[in-house]
Amino acid sequence: MVGNSKRAPLYIKVNPADNVAIVVNEGGLPAGTRFADGLVLLEEVPQGHKVALSDIAKGTAVRRYGEVIGHATRPLPKGSWVEESSVDLPAAPDLDSLPLATLSLPAAKKLEGLFFDGYRNADGSVGSKNLLGLVPSVQCVAGVLQHAASRIEKELLPRYPHVDGVVALNHSYGCGVAITAPDAEIPIRTIRNLAAHPNFGGQALFVGLGCEKLQPERIAPAAAAAGCADLASSSAASAAAVPASGSLPCGIIRLQEEAGFDGMVARILALAEERLAILEKRRREPCPLSDLVVGMQCGGSDAFSGVTANPAIGYASDLLVRAGATVMFSEVTEVRDAIHLLTPRAATPAVGAALVREMKWYDAYLARGGADRSANPAPGNKKGGLANIVEKSLGSIAKSGTSPIAGVLGPGELAKEKGLIFAATPASDFICGTLQLASGIHLQVFSTGRGTPYGLAMAPVIKVSSRSYLARQWPDLIDIDAGKIATGDASVEEVGAEIFQLIIDAASGRKKPWADIHGIRNDLVLFNPAPVT
Amino acid sequence: MVGNSKRAPLYIKVNPADNVAIVVNEGGLPAGTRFADGLVLLEEVPQGHKVALSDIAKGTAVRRYGEVIGHATRPLPKGSWVEESSVDLPAAPDLDSLPLATLSLPAAKKLEGLFFDGYRNADGSVGSKNLLGLVPSVQCVAGVLQHAASRIEKELLPRYPHVDGVVALNHSYGCGVAITAPDAEIPIRTIRNLAAHPNFGGQALFVGLGCEKLQPERIAPAAAAAGCADLASSSAASAAAVPASGSLPCGIIRLQEEAGFDGMVARILALAEERLAILEKRRREPCPLSDLVVGMQCGGSDAFSGVTANPAIGYASDLLVRAGATVMFSEVTEVRDAIHLLTPRAATPAVGAALVREMKWYDAYLARGGADRSANPAPGNKKGGLANIVEKSLGSIAKSGTSPIAGVLGPGELAKEKGLIFAATPASDFICGTLQLASGIHLQVFSTGRGTPYGLAMAPVIKVSSRSYLARQWPDLIDIDAGKIATGDASVEEVGAEIFQLIIDAASGRKKPWADIHGIRNDLVLFNPAPVT
Repeated sequence: MVGNSKRAPLYIKVNPADNVAIVVNEGGLPAGTRFADGLVLLEEVPQGHKVALSDIAKGTAVRRYGEVIGHATRPLPKGSWVEESSVDLPAAPDLDSLPLATLSLPAAKKLEGLFFDGYRNADGSVGSKNLLGLVPSVQCVAGVLQHAASRIEKELLPRYPHVDGVVALNHSYGCGVAITAPDAEIPIRTIRNLAAHPNFGGQALFVGLGCEKLQPERIAPAAAAAGCADLASSSAASAAAVPASGSLPCGIIRLQEEAGFDGMVARILALAEERLAILEKRRREPCPLSDLVVGMQCGGSDAFSGVTANPAIGYASDLLVRAGATVMFSEVTEVRDAIHLLTPRAATPAVGAALVREMKWYDAYLARGGADRSANPAPGNKKGGLANIVEKSLGSIAKSGTSPIAGVLGPGELAKEKGLIFAATPASDFICGTLQLASGIHLQVFSTGRGTPYGLAMAPVIKVSSRSYLARQWPDLIDIDAGKIATGDASVEEVGAEIFQLIIDAASGRKKPWADIHGIRNDLVLFNPAPVT
Repeated sequence: MVGNSKRAPLYIKVNPADNVAIVVNEGGLPAGTRFADGLVLLEEVPQGHKVALSDIAKGTAVRRYGEVIGHATRPLPKGSWVEESSVDLPAAPDLDSLPLATLSLPAAKKLEGLFFDGYRNADGSVGSKNLLGLVPSVQCVAGVLQHAASRIEKELLPRYPHVDGVVALNHSYGCGVAITAPDAEIPIRTIRNLAAHPNFGGQALFVGLGCEKLQPERIAPAAAAAGCADLASSSAASAAAVPASGSLPCGIIRLQEEAGFDGMVARILALAEERLAILEKRRREPCPLSDLVVGMQCGGSDAFSGVTANPAIGYASDLLVRAGATVMFSEVTEVRDAIHLLTPRAATPAVGAALVREMKWYDAYLARGGADRSANPAPGNKKGGLANIVEKSLGSIAKSGTSPIAGVLGPGELAKEKGLIFAATPASDFICGTLQLASGIHLQVFSTGRGTPYGLAMAPVIKVSSRSYLARQWPDLIDIDAGKIATGDASVEEVGAEIFQLIIDAASGRKKPWADIHGIRNDLVLFNPAPVT
């Protein structure tokens, strides 16, 4: 980093091999600006955008993060603005010649004796919230379920002060879908794993219609197990709702078996109250950090994301891994172009091969729909200085820190390993959020450059801004400002430690991130690569 | 129809050529039951399920509706239960050898002088409700929009008694999508046409994020037109919101330009109030039925659907067409196997070719995802007596009545022609509903056999049951019982006329269907055949 005053012209060069750097100053810098090292801007360069540090001949490599992000499409003289059209999109890394598990990483020192306050469940899992979950098998019941959820919130919840809220997992799946198609298992396991999320304390209430393709048994195996009477056909519904030890309680409501709208709502409210009474008894207790599962995501990224917010998140990720926690990073399309930096970090060749498998699956999925990796980045990413998906990916993977990659999950699969896990998901914020929840995260850390008011109903979301401007503009949405790294007012390690501490506090319910204070809830959006019918 | 007492054993044979009929009696009929014509059941047959009317040899055609619904997989003696496994799935009609526009239909007598009370808009369109629409360009803003919508409902709406409600069109699109993929235009035009729905009176409020792929201009052309200042950059936001004559008002809110969460919500509320003041002045006035656009759909169908509810809906459809209205039927996968009965009814060979085009598109779409037409029907359809998609389709198309098919729409396209239109959509209830709304329906008629508590926020939904049992079980959800046709207590024409009258009354706001009384709102679910990224 060059310079240390906030007002002096400043750029950030990430790697000694780089021939471009990004402009730090808010509002950008005009032509003629002279940096401390003598570099003079030949033209105006917007904030976050790249300046050539040396003459770059047409056709030669443009380097950032020490990697080739593309080749100059025209001569780029020293001091010129290296914008989107002046860098081509290089070929993606070849997936058949990647080094797998070749990097021998030194064993990081374990962090012992760290705890958070969680809700310990009967099956050993731990929750970060105490929520009543209402789980539809099909969108057909969503209107009734939303109505019931509103009434539960208003009429029942005030009497259960230890319950944090009620969440109806309304989704677009369940019928009118090709349920035997090869990819149908993705949305189905996602719903199943969401329903089993530890924040619901094993008390999720399943509501089906009756005639749907996704019969509730497939998402509620324990609730439909032998010995579990069907609720509507049982005269003693409350008796049937006694939870089996460590598993989901018996019983599934099927609206086609109920007496009209009033009957449906009354049945849901009655069962909900029984479960609220059970949830009301939950209390937080100290749990080791090895019980914690944290998801990392970025959205609305800019050129700062990869040098401020994401490295700080990566530092927090390393601390979590050292403490024995599970950390997920995701977003296949924003990892694909940096995959050659990840496969060497795989803990075993099998993990490396799994990374490659997920990349190949996505390449084929995009091709099937007539798209490719150039569908990313978004206009705002580009406005924020990102020339193409290669540059975006190099910044994105900084969230993963430096730990070995211990495992790989298909979309919506439940995490079993501890340590750093790659959970393969689309980069879409809301789909990634939904899938990481299904994979079991207790909390998500979300970095943003352009800014997005994102939140999840099921778990706290900590929002980290890559630029200080955004943190000042959105003081009631951004939890941590990593922009101070760019201006030299804080180090990556300092902001990383701040994030680490807030993760522990938010997972413990001691501090609420802004999204929870306002109750901002994005919709659950499933990943369904199979056809609808 | 044989017999006329409700208690006497009764079956329905649709066509003289049929060799199967369905059992009418609730609870089914036991082995040994003798019908009035001497037929004796060899085994128990559930309600709605088929009985063989003559000996059917293995490999020979099983006929219902006068059509081959499959071939016997084993000998089916007269009086035996013809259940799912005893009928194979025949090949789908060949799409390259269909007769196009070959049926010369007699011109039906025009119905003149019929009116409904609608909200006439400046552009000539007519609304059936008076709603404030909030239109997000991207799911990222949905959490904020939902929060704002709740506050508008509580704090502002009570002061605007002539406005029926506020609807946030939250959807899963806008970013993290392959927006240049060949099929991306489908979800984009759907959102654009939803926002322009006449029930919003040209006052829909557009809320974008800023960095998303689906820039709001693409869904709000008028609001982004020359001369329209961007709201956030204008110091006189209210002046900028004056509507252009007959088009959407200027201005788009972009959350990234607002001052935090409180600033976002305050901005949305301020603009919403201006639009509410405009909407408050709308009044219903008599409009000819030729201004009316009605959608027909079925969901949770059973074997009665094709002989009770759907023919009655078809009769109402014919009346609407004779009165000059626009009527849509949809659901490609439930039309595909009866397409040979529809292409002859095309008004022109071009319309016939368009029908074939939509079938071919869907065949290819299913094949791409490793699925085919056998993905339909659902378990509940089968429980209700439908053996396969052929039998389901033959019942489904009864909704279209007997009029010539005047036009074909791709998914989410806006209807321009009057008369009977085929709007190509998936059969998924909520996706079909969303797409028919985008195509401009003022109201939907929804037939159901197994029962679904379905509703739309943007337009009234009239629910017609195929069985009387369902109407009795769900008295506060089913608006019209077509089951009385099966028992001989009403004719198709009588129930059809009842549906026709309720369509006029509900579109006029004089009668509220049950879904509106309870406020049941299914989610908007877009059809996005393109990849997410």
